[in-house]
Amino acid sequence: MIFVLRPGSPRKEIEALTGQIESWGFTTFLSTGTEHTVVCLLGNTAVIDVDAVVQNNDIIEYGRRVTEPYKAVNRTVHPEDTIVNAGGIMIGPGMFQVIAGPCSVESEVQIIEVARSVQASGATLLRGGAFKPRTSPYSFMGLQEEGLRLLLRAKKETGLPVVTEIMNQTQLPLFEDIDVIQIGARNMQNFDLLREVGRFGRPVLLKRGLANTLEELLMSAEYIMSAGNSQVILCERGIRTFETATRNTLDISAIPLLKQKSHLPVIVDPSHASGLRGLVAPLARAAVAVGADGLMIEAHNDPAQALCDGAQSLDLGQFKNLMDELKRRVAFEGKKIGAA
Amino acid sequence: MIFVLRPGSPRKEIEALTGQIESWGFTTFLSTGTEHTVVCLLGNTAVIDVDAVVQNNDIIEYGRRVTEPYKAVNRTVHPEDTIVNAGGIMIGPGMFQVIAGPCSVESEVQIIEVARSVQASGATLLRGGAFKPRTSPYSFMGLQEEGLRLLLRAKKETGLPVVTEIMNQTQLPLFEDIDVIQIGARNMQNFDLLREVGRFGRPVLLKRGLANTLEELLMSAEYIMSAGNSQVILCERGIRTFETATRNTLDISAIPLLKQKSHLPVIVDPSHASGLRGLVAPLARAAVAVGADGLMIEAHNDPAQALCDGAQSLDLGQFKNLMDELKRRVAFEGKKIGAA
Amino acid sequence: MIFVLRPGSPRKEIEALTGQIESWGFTTFLSTGTEHTVVCLLGNTAVIDVDAVVQNNDIIEYGRRVTEPYKAVNRTVHPEDTIVNAGGIMIGPGMFQVIAGPCSVESEVQIIEVARSVQASGATLLRGGAFKPRTSPYSFMGLQEEGLRLLLRAKKETGLPVVTEIMNQTQLPLFEDIDVIQIGARNMQNFDLLREVGRFGRPVLLKRGLANTLEELLMSAEYIMSAGNSQVILCERGIRTFETATRNTLDISAIPLLKQKSHLPVIVDPSHASGLRGLVAPLARAAVAVGADGLMIEAHNDPAQALCDGAQSLDLGQFKNLMDELKRRVAFEGKKIGAA
Amino acid sequence: MIFVLRPGSPRKEIEALTGQIESWGFTTFLSTGTEHTVVCLLGNTAVIDVDAVVQNNDIIEYGRRVTEPYKAVNRTVHPEDTIVNAGGIMIGPGMFQVIAGPCSVESEVQIIEVARSVQASGATLLRGGAFKPRTSPYSFMGLQEEGLRLLLRAKKETGLPVVTEIMNQTQLPLFEDIDVIQIGARNMQNFDLLREVGRFGRPVLLKRGLANTLEELLMSAEYIMSAGNSQVILCERGIRTFETATRNTLDISAIPLLKQKSHLPVIVDPSHASGLRGLVAPLARAAVAVGADGLMIEAHNDPAQALCDGAQSLDLGQFKNLMDELKRRVAFEGKKIGAA
Repeated sequence: MIFVLRPGSPRKEIEALTGQIESWGFTTFLSTGTEHTVVCLLGNTAVIDVDAVVQNNDIIEYGRRVTEPYKAVNRTVHPEDTIVNAGGIMIGPGMFQVIAGPCSVESEVQIIEVARSVQASGATLLRGGAFKPRTSPYSFMGLQEEGLRLLLRAKKETGLPVVTEIMNQTQLPLFEDIDVIQIGARNMQNFDLLREVGRFGRPVLLKRGLANTLEELLMSAEYIMSAGNSQVILCERGIRTFETATRNTLDISAIPLLKQKSHLPVIVDPSHASGLRGLVAPLARAAVAVGADGLMIEAHNDPAQALCDGAQSLDLGQFKNLMDELKRRVAFEGKKIGAA
Repeated sequence: MIFVLRPGSPRKEIEALTGQIESWGFTTFLSTGTEHTVVCLLGNTAVIDVDAVVQNNDIIEYGRRVTEPYKAVNRTVHPEDTIVNAGGIMIGPGMFQVIAGPCSVESEVQIIEVARSVQASGATLLRGGAFKPRTSPYSFMGLQEEGLRLLLRAKKETGLPVVTEIMNQTQLPLFEDIDVIQIGARNMQNFDLLREVGRFGRPVLLKRGLANTLEELLMSAEYIMSAGNSQVILCERGIRTFETATRNTLDISAIPLLKQKSHLPVIVDPSHASGLRGLVAPLARAAVAVGADGLMIEAHNDPAQALCDGAQSLDLGQFKNLMDELKRRVAFEGKKIGAA
Repeated sequence: MIFVLRPGSPRKEIEALTGQIESWGFTTFLSTGTEHTVVCLLGNTAVIDVDAVVQNNDIIEYGRRVTEPYKAVNRTVHPEDTIVNAGGIMIGPGMFQVIAGPCSVESEVQIIEVARSVQASGATLLRGGAFKPRTSPYSFMGLQEEGLRLLLRAKKETGLPVVTEIMNQTQLPLFEDIDVIQIGARNMQNFDLLREVGRFGRPVLLKRGLANTLEELLMSAEYIMSAGNSQVILCERGIRTFETATRNTLDISAIPLLKQKSHLPVIVDPSHASGLRGLVAPLARAAVAVGADGLMIEAHNDPAQALCDGAQSLDLGQFKNLMDELKRRVAFEGKKIGAA
Repeated sequence: MIFVLRPGSPRKEIEALTGQIESWGFTTFLSTGTEHTVVCLLGNTAVIDVDAVVQNNDIIEYGRRVTEPYKAVNRTVHPEDTIVNAGGIMIGPGMFQVIAGPCSVESEVQIIEVARSVQASGATLLRGGAFKPRTSPYSFMGLQEEGLRLLLRAKKETGLPVVTEIMNQTQLPLFEDIDVIQIGARNMQNFDLLREVGRFGRPVLLKRGLANTLEELLMSAEYIMSAGNSQVILCERGIRTFETATRNTLDISAIPLLKQKSHLPVIVDPSHASGLRGLVAPLARAAVAVGADGLMIEAHNDPAQALCDGAQSLDLGQFKNLMDELKRRVAFEGKKIGAA
C-alpha cells in the first residue's frame, strides 16, 4: 500500500503519519521524488482501510494498494530510477558502468596488474572473488580473507571501488571496507543472508538465480530493501535451459522488463551468461543497446592459467579493445561511463 | 568432407572431380568464394580416404573432414557470409532488413494499408500469415489461399517482396509467386517439408523450434541445403523456459553463435520471442547491436482488433517510431536498410 | 458447450437436436455413456444462449459451457474412459498393453524374429519404424514403403497388430492396413497432419512434443477428434529440460493429470524418455504403478548393431525378463495384458 | 582415488596406511563392506602414482582412480547401499520409510494431533517446518525456535524421530535434538552450510535444487561426506521446466540413476514436486515402484486453513487411506515400513 503525499508536506507531519502507521505494526519506507513523496507500507496491509487513512490525514493526496507482491522495489512506489552509489561511482540513469576483474583474486601481483589495466581501459569498478562458491568441495575455494585483503590493496592502488561475493552472513564483519557486496546466483534465495545484508547497509549486487523467475528476483531484492537497504543492483547472468551450446542462456528481455517493473538499476554479466570468451563482446553490445545500466565482465592477465573460469575470461588486450568499442556505443545511447 | 581447390582450377577439371565423387554415391555442393572454390561432399564420408583423393587430383590443394554433423551450412565449408536474395532485397553482410506486417492477412484493405504504411516507415519486406498454425482447432486459421492472393495484391501495390508461412508440402504449388517461404517454429523438424521446400528452390526463412538446440536448427537448414537450396535465412524467435513473464525467452546468444558456426544470415523476431508489445523496441535494439542481419516484426493497423497476436503487435505509429530509431542504429553499425 | 440428455431420449429426437445445432454452423460430437448421452458442440459457442436451448428442447436435462479450450477430449464431456480398439487389442480401463519392437524395421528376418520373440514374451502390439524422422539428412531414414511391407509381413506371421509412424499426410494411402498410426513428438503440432489423420479414421498414437505442455497435447488430440476420430492414445515420452543425465525427462505426473482432464488412454515410452537401456525397467515399473494404460518399449534382436537408438533398446532376453516382471505388477494393479 | 584392501587386513596396518596418506595432505574416507574395506582419498589426487602406492603396501589389493568428480558418494567406492539411521528408523535397503507432517509447525495442538494421526496411519518419521524459506519477506516465516520446541514436544509424545529444515549454519546449536536435518532445495548449493552440517554429524536430508543436475546434487552430498558425515539421504522433489500444470516436474528417472551412481538412499517428495493434492497418491505409487527408499509427504489436520502449502497437503483421512494402500505396495516390493 502506498500513500502519495501532497507536494510541500511539512516534514513534521510526514513523521507523524509514518509514526502512526508504524504504531499499527507496519514498516514504512519513504520514497522522496522530485515532485512527490510516497509513503510505502510493508507488511500485510489487507486490514487497512485506505479511504479512512486518506480522509484522516490532510497531507495525503491519495492512497492505493500495490497489487504486485513486491512493494519497495516496485516502480509504482518509486517512479524515478534509483541511483546506487557504489563507492563514489553512480549506477543508474544516464550512466553506464563496467565492473571488471578476474574470477578469483589469485595473488597481489595479479590483482594489482589486472586492476591497473582494466582501469586504464575504462572500467569503473573492480571485481575479484575471495570466497568462491564451487560445485566440487575439492576445487579452489578462493584465497578467502587473504583475498579480501589483496582486493582492498588493489583498491588502494587504483582508487577503483571493489565488488566481491559473500557466501554467508557470518562473513559480514570482513566486508566493512568492500564497496559493493555481491550475492551470487546460488544464494539468491538464501533469505537469511539477504536480510542480514539488507541490515548491513552496504550496496548489494544481487545476481539472478539459475532457475529463478524475474518476480522471484524482485522478491529477493524486496528482502534486502525491507531490511532497510535501498542500494540494490540487479544482475542478469543467464538462466538454465535445454540449450547446451552456451553455459547458460542470457535472458536479454529481463533487462527492459525489470526496469519496467522496478526502479532498481540492472546490469548484465555476459561472461557467466555464455561461458564463452567469444560471446562476451556481442552480448556486451546487446546489453548496452537494450538499456542495461552496466556490465560485469571477467578479465584476467593470463586466462589460460586462471584458477577458475578461464574459458570465459577476456585477456587484458581483449578487454581494452572491447572497452574502446563500448565507449562509442555508450556515447551513442547518450550515457557516460565513469564518476558522474 | 571438403576439398579446397587451387585458385584458378579450370571448370572442366572441377566438373570431372565432382562427377567422379558423385559416381561414388555422394552429393556434392560447390562453394565458390572470392579466392577459393570448395567442394563439399554430403553423405556418409567415413569410407573415403582423404589423402588418396588429394594425391590423385592435382586441382585439390587440401582436403579435410568436417567434424560437425552439419556440412553445407558450416562456415568451414563456406567461409564467406551467404547473401540471400529475397525478391531483390539482399539479406546478408552490410545490410539490415526489416520484415514487417500483420500476424494474419485479414482483408485486402487491411493488408494494403499495413503494407503501404510499413513501407513508408522503412520496412523492406512484407509479412502476413495466410495459413496459420493454431494450437486450437477452433481458432482462426487464416484466409488460406485467399490470404495468399491478397498478400500478392499488396506486393503488387507496393513492390515489397513477401514472406509467408507454409504448413505442408502439398501447398507448395500455391507459393510460386511468394518471395520467401517461412517454415514456422512448430515445423522446424518436419523433415519431409524441409526437403520439399529445399527442392522447390525459393528462399526460405527457417524459424527455430521452441525446444530446439542451435545444432538442430543448423541440421534443419542442412536438410534444405542438401536438397539443393542455399538460400536459407535462420530466425531466432525465442525458446521455452521456466520463465513466464515473457511468452518465450529470446536467446540473444544464438545470433553470434549461429554466425560463428554457419555462413547463413540470421534474423530476430522480437514479437514472438516476447509476446509483449512493450518489449519489441528494446529487443530490436539488442538485435541490431548483437549483429543480426534483420528483424521480423508484427505491425497491425488496429492491434486491439487483430484476429491473432494483437498483444504483441505494434500499431503503425509505433512501428514508424521504431524504424526512425532503428535507422540511426543500423547506420551506427555501418550497415544499411534497403535494396543493396 | 455440452447438453446432457435425459436418460432414454429417443434417437429420433436426438438426431433432430443435433441437426438443428449443426444448422447453426457447429459440429456436434455425441458421447454415449452407460447412463447419459452428451451432445458436445464444437466451434465458437459464445453466441449460443444455453438456457434458451435447454428450454426449447425437452430431451435436454441441462447444458453448460466447457471452460477448458479442449472440448471433445475433455472428461467433462465424456466421463467414462475411452477404449481404443487397436486391431482387436483393447487399450483402456482394466487393460495394460505393451507395444514392443525395434526403432526401425531393418529387414524381414529382423522384424519377424523380433515380432515372434516379443509376442512370446507377452507384448500385445508390434512397433517398428518405416519412415524415420532424423535430425540429420545424412542418417538412415528407414526402409520407407518397404519397411511398411515388412512390418505387415510380421503382422501376418504373428497376428500382432502394428504401430508405425507417419511423417506427412501424403503417406496416408500407404497406411490402410496399419492398425495404429503414430504421430511423432516432432509432429505433435503439425496441425494439417493431425486433421488428415483424424479424417482417415484409424486409431492414432499421439506422442507429446519435447517442449509441449499437457494442454497443448490435449489440443492436438482435439484436432484429431474434431475431425471425427475418437480413437486417440496419448503418449508421454519425456520432455526437454536442463538435465543432461537422461536424453529427456519423463514427466510421470503427466499420466494421472491427463487421465483427470481427459477420457483418452495414456501410455508411456520409457525408451525415448530416458535414452538409457538401464532405466527402461524402473521407468516401466513406475508407469504401471502410476496408472498408465500401457507401454511402448524398444526391443531389438541385436541392439549393438541397431541402425538407430541402440543405446536405449533392450535385447530380447532383457525384454522377456521385464515382461515376466511386468505381468506380476499388472496383475497387482487388477489389470490384464492381452486381448480383452 | 580408491585403494581396495585385502580381506582381513589388520586394523593397525590400515591405520598406518591412512596415516601415511593423510601425511601427504589428503583426507581419507574408510568404507567398510562385508567383504572389502576401501580407502578413498579425497582431494586433488592427480599427483599420486597409484602403482607405487600399491607396490609399497602389502595390504592393498588394487588401486584405481575414480573418474567421476564425486568420490565419497560414489558407488564405486562403496558398492553396498548405505543405511541411514534416522533416530532409530533405518533408511536403506529392504526398508521403505514415510516421513509425514505439516508444511509448518503451527501450534502444539496442531503438531501433536498430526503426529499422532500420521503415526497411527503408519508414518515412521515426523516432518514439520520451524524455519520456513519464503519467497516473500512478508509471508509467514514459521514459528522459528518455538517451532523446534513444539516439534520436539511431538517427538516426545509419539516417539517419532523428527525431520526439519535448517536455513543457515548459525542455527546449528538449536538442532542438537533433531534427528534429521533437512537442507532445502534453495540451499542445495549453499556450500558453507553443507560443510558445517557435514561437521555437525547429524543425518542430513538433502533436497535437489529446482535447477540442479543430478551430478550437482551428488557433489553437494560430497560436500557433506567430505566433511566427515556419511549419513546423507538424497531427495528428489521436482525440477523447474516449461510445464505449468504442475508446480514442478517430478524427475522420476532421478531415483534409479542416483542409486546407480551412488550408495546413498533416495526418497521422493510428491507434495512439493506436484503442488497438487490430487497427484500425491499416484506419484507415491510410482515412487514405491521405481525403487525409492521412502517418501516425504505433507499432511495437515486442516489443509484449508494451513499457513502454507495447503493446496498440496493431504488431510489426515486422505493420508491414512494412502498409507493403507502403500503398505500393500511396499510389501509387494519385498520391503517393509517401520523400525528394522
